[in-house]
Amino acid sequence: MADTLILTLSCEDRPGITARVTGFLFERGCNILDAQQFNDRSDKDRDRFFMRVAFDPTGTRTDSLRSDFKKLAGEFSMDWKIAAQDRPRRVMIMVSKFDHCLVDLLYRWRTGEINIDPVAIISNHPLETTTDADLGDIPFHYLPVTKESKADQERQVRQVAHDTGAELVVLARYMQIFSDEQSAHFGCRCINIHHSFLPGFKGARPYHQAHERGVKIIGATAHFVTADLDEGPIIHQDVERITHADSAADLVRKGRDIERRVLAEAVRLFTADRVLMNGNRTVVFRG
Amino acid sequence: MADTLILTLSCEDRPGITARVTGFLFERGCNILDAQQFNDRSDKDRDRFFMRVAFDPTGTRTDSLRSDFKKLAGEFSMDWKIAAQDRPRRVMIMVSKFDHCLVDLLYRWRTGEINIDPVAIISNHPLETTTDADLGDIPFHYLPVTKESKADQERQVRQVAHDTGAELVVLARYMQIFSDEQSAHFGCRCINIHHSFLPGFKGARPYHQAHERGVKIIGATAHFVTADLDEGPIIHQDVERITHADSAADLVRKGRDIERRVLAEAVRLFTADRVLMNGNRTVVFRG
Amino acid sequence: MADTLILTLSCEDRPGITARVTGFLFERGCNILDAQQFNDRSDKDRDRFFMRVAFDPTGTRTDSLRSDFKKLAGEFSMDWKIAAQDRPRRVMIMVSKFDHCLVDLLYRWRTGEINIDPVAIISNHPLETTTDADLGDIPFHYLPVTKESKADQERQVRQVAHDTGAELVVLARYMQIFSDEQSAHFGCRCINIHHSFLPGFKGARPYHQAHERGVKIIGATAHFVTADLDEGPIIHQDVERITHADSAADLVRKGRDIERRVLAEAVRLFTADRVLMNGNRTVVFRG
Amino acid sequence: MADTLILTLSCEDRPGITARVTGFLFERGCNILDAQQFNDRSDKDRDRFFMRVAFDPTGTRTDSLRSDFKKLAGEFSMDWKIAAQDRPRRVMIMVSKFDHCLVDLLYRWRTGEINIDPVAIISNHPLETTTDADLGDIPFHYLPVTKESKADQERQVRQVAHDTGAELVVLARYMQIFSDEQSAHFGCRCINIHHSFLPGFKGARPYHQAHERGVKIIGATAHFVTADLDEGPIIHQDVERITHADSAADLVRKGRDIERRVLAEAVRLFTADRVLMNGNRTVVFRG
Repeated sequence: MADTLILTLSCEDRPGITARVTGFLFERGCNILDAQQFNDRSDKDRDRFFMRVAFDPTGTRTDSLRSDFKKLAGEFSMDWKIAAQDRPRRVMIMVSKFDHCLVDLLYRWRTGEINIDPVAIISNHPLETTTDADLGDIPFHYLPVTKESKADQERQVRQVAHDTGAELVVLARYMQIFSDEQSAHFGCRCINIHHSFLPGFKGARPYHQAHERGVKIIGATAHFVTADLDEGPIIHQDVERITHADSAADLVRKGRDIERRVLAEAVRLFTADRVLMNGNRTVVFRG
Repeated sequence: MADTLILTLSCEDRPGITARVTGFLFERGCNILDAQQFNDRSDKDRDRFFMRVAFDPTGTRTDSLRSDFKKLAGEFSMDWKIAAQDRPRRVMIMVSKFDHCLVDLLYRWRTGEINIDPVAIISNHPLETTTDADLGDIPFHYLPVTKESKADQERQVRQVAHDTGAELVVLARYMQIFSDEQSAHFGCRCINIHHSFLPGFKGARPYHQAHERGVKIIGATAHFVTADLDEGPIIHQDVERITHADSAADLVRKGRDIERRVLAEAVRLFTADRVLMNGNRTVVFRG
Repeated sequence: MADTLILTLSCEDRPGITARVTGFLFERGCNILDAQQFNDRSDKDRDRFFMRVAFDPTGTRTDSLRSDFKKLAGEFSMDWKIAAQDRPRRVMIMVSKFDHCLVDLLYRWRTGEINIDPVAIISNHPLETTTDADLGDIPFHYLPVTKESKADQERQVRQVAHDTGAELVVLARYMQIFSDEQSAHFGCRCINIHHSFLPGFKGARPYHQAHERGVKIIGATAHFVTADLDEGPIIHQDVERITHADSAADLVRKGRDIERRVLAEAVRLFTADRVLMNGNRTVVFRG
Repeated sequence: MADTLILTLSCEDRPGITARVTGFLFERGCNILDAQQFNDRSDKDRDRFFMRVAFDPTGTRTDSLRSDFKKLAGEFSMDWKIAAQDRPRRVMIMVSKFDHCLVDLLYRWRTGEINIDPVAIISNHPLETTTDADLGDIPFHYLPVTKESKADQERQVRQVAHDTGAELVVLARYMQIFSDEQSAHFGCRCINIHHSFLPGFKGARPYHQAHERGVKIIGATAHFVTADLDEGPIIHQDVERITHADSAADLVRKGRDIERRVLAEAVRLFTADRVLMNGNRTVVFRG
């Protein structure tokens, strides 16, 4: 099924959307392989509707499907997209000195576990201090950043993203905070990984703070980057138990493992068109 | 939304089912509140289709909906059901000497967490050795069982189920094994709770075997009862970590906690029409 | 082994403590059944030492053991305690209108899972709005609280604790915040249960905030009550996964389950002398 | 603390062992940094005692410590070992065509997360079908195996282990079953990784069987290799939740993730002298 298509959409909820959308596909001979929908009625003022449909177009041309669907979508004021399931997404990976997430992503890419096309790796450190992993043919960009050069460096980052046609930016433990401008620019095309604790901690050396506080569980959160939120819309989270006998160094080590698997899962979900935006939160249609 | 209806159905997969079903509801003015579907393509010979739709009938009468839908269902040879979401299911609970699952179910019933109507409690032990919990007005049936009386006792059990109109039988640590006849009779209307280990253990005192074997994780499985399977179709499972320092008694204690919450979740899912049969396995549409 | 004793101690770390303590017991013919120690070297200025020893006194009288150990303890400036393992701890339970934690504790007490003697239940609501659980012979105190009467009510609470000789106060979803004075009074004899999220939320209706924020994991924390900390030293934590399809009401329901099992585990650990204080955090010697 | 030593021991339990061992170290000026013990009283006939002590020898020579301790150990018929904490263990890794565990181990070795010295990699497939990972200077041995050549190949494997002085053999998804002779030869120096399910499945394609059976949780077990057990003494286990929507291929993918982190944790525990044998099970002293 090399040509399975994925339709994702969201709009204000109204009676008949599912019937219209599935009817649309049926009339064109498309065969639905999987469909998930979610009606969010948690907001008093308006209900929101979300849908993901995987279908076999069985010969119908994608461009005509798109132009036909445009009319239907307009009627319901939908945000929508039709994409080929097997098309690798062009991904730009940003990293600093900790390469565990980078290495993990590249391994999963090579084994076919996540369907990406790594078009660029950007680090604010030289290659030799960033990683000794084998990057193959992936272009590596060393873009150092200082307080003075930050605006300029961010412009260069946007340029690389533009030149490579990156559809997704993954902050694989990139230790620089985006400016509000940069966050707004990449927004929901940019996934970050963040340690997470119960309770949360602000400031430097969070694993040391968590150890100091004696928490019994540590975790990580993969989220979209936004200008106006500490952490943007959450895509995926996971945790591990720890004990008093775990040193701060143990927490860092265990945290690395959680970080890399949470980030990889978020990237996998995103590239499979399984993550839809719902204001400050996400709808995640798992497989 | 006191009158929300739940439509569940399964049939052989064919193009157009979703469009037909959602179109059917749309035409009758029903408003879909939630819909989930699953296309099982794991079997080489035939695809199976499963769907759960919660909808507001907005005035359409349930009996006319049912009679109309019957025609559509016949076309696709569907197994199907339309049920009121808020109708409590008549449940018969069977128990022996361990009452942790019984007590837990009754507490969740009283707090409204699970929507059941407990029509009977059956034990093969007298009330005083079964539980000291407050059973309120729920009829308690003491139906002892010996090798000789087993067939007769099972007949009595069926009689109670029949007389009370029980829609679900919950084996809340009922320590007697159903005969094949009894299993076949209740089948997918009967949920059992079973300890589960990695690896599994047969025979008596499984927690002691698990301790002897030094397992690091223990769990429990809620499943339907079937004549031809060790454990029938699985509804829900959960686990806990243990260590070498946990005695067999600790395992029993921790196991109780897992058992009661796994069974309660399975009952909640069943009574919300979220569990559909798929041969020897289940499709569970979580909320 | 009805007379197993538990020795718990903490002090500044110095060479020879383990040798001295275990030698002390050996010389008196006591037989060590279980021993755990922890050397905390995370503080630059001083190392801390923690130990829990379960031993069979084999005839040695507890009072002479205590008076002999006092000398050794003085040498190392130890905080220490020798207690009979099987003595139930006198526990006072405080509750408001949500009784899931209360009901759970009473069930575990009746089945012998936690070794407590419930000497009083205090609620700021009348019995009929607090719970319809069977409290048996446990005295129930209705101590309502208003802004004006708070100081007075807290005095009454201390009085009940004093009169009943309560060794532990369990806040089983008691919805009033202790004054600093009350927190300081009960301190590490008082366990509270608190919802926990990644990230954390302040203010009212936290489950609704968590839903609004779209978190994928919710949890609960059992901790000691302290005047100077949002949440005091953490004893135990646990979590559950949730999805976008979980409503705020689902979060509340799932949260109840986590809360009750986390609180019960904390009480079990405390009453088994398995929780030692280490400044703002705990050392938890699991079984 | 480059010269921290680890003493591990096990013997029949008798009064005074802890006192004697810790007294022994105290007399020689050694400073205990961490000590854990476990008294296994689950066997009716005899109690077993297990201990792990990390200590700073503060100048005492290791060889004189060893010769002195030998006398004490003889008194109690101890199995014992004194080893330098920071000495990397010589590890031989065996692999077939799935390289996710191999790649993961090598990454953790390079980042210093597990303290090993990889002295050899053996595959029954040529390098090009085994992995495209960068093996650096680690010698790769292609030792194919057929029914006829199995005994001979196993001899070669033993030879490589002997020549390299391998202290640990890691079966990193090595898809050949050891003969009983080979299992007995390597025994508790050989760690294997195994998928695990609730319930368990025998035979080929276990993930497909698990899918067929509709399990809701999959897991992995790291265990020692033994001739007389399906799976030998268990070192570590972990699990993940799955749903009806996970295909057999999804299970394989998720299983890979569990396998690699469970195996890595088992290797980390072993190389830190945290795993002691207790008949058919293990005592695992976590950090």
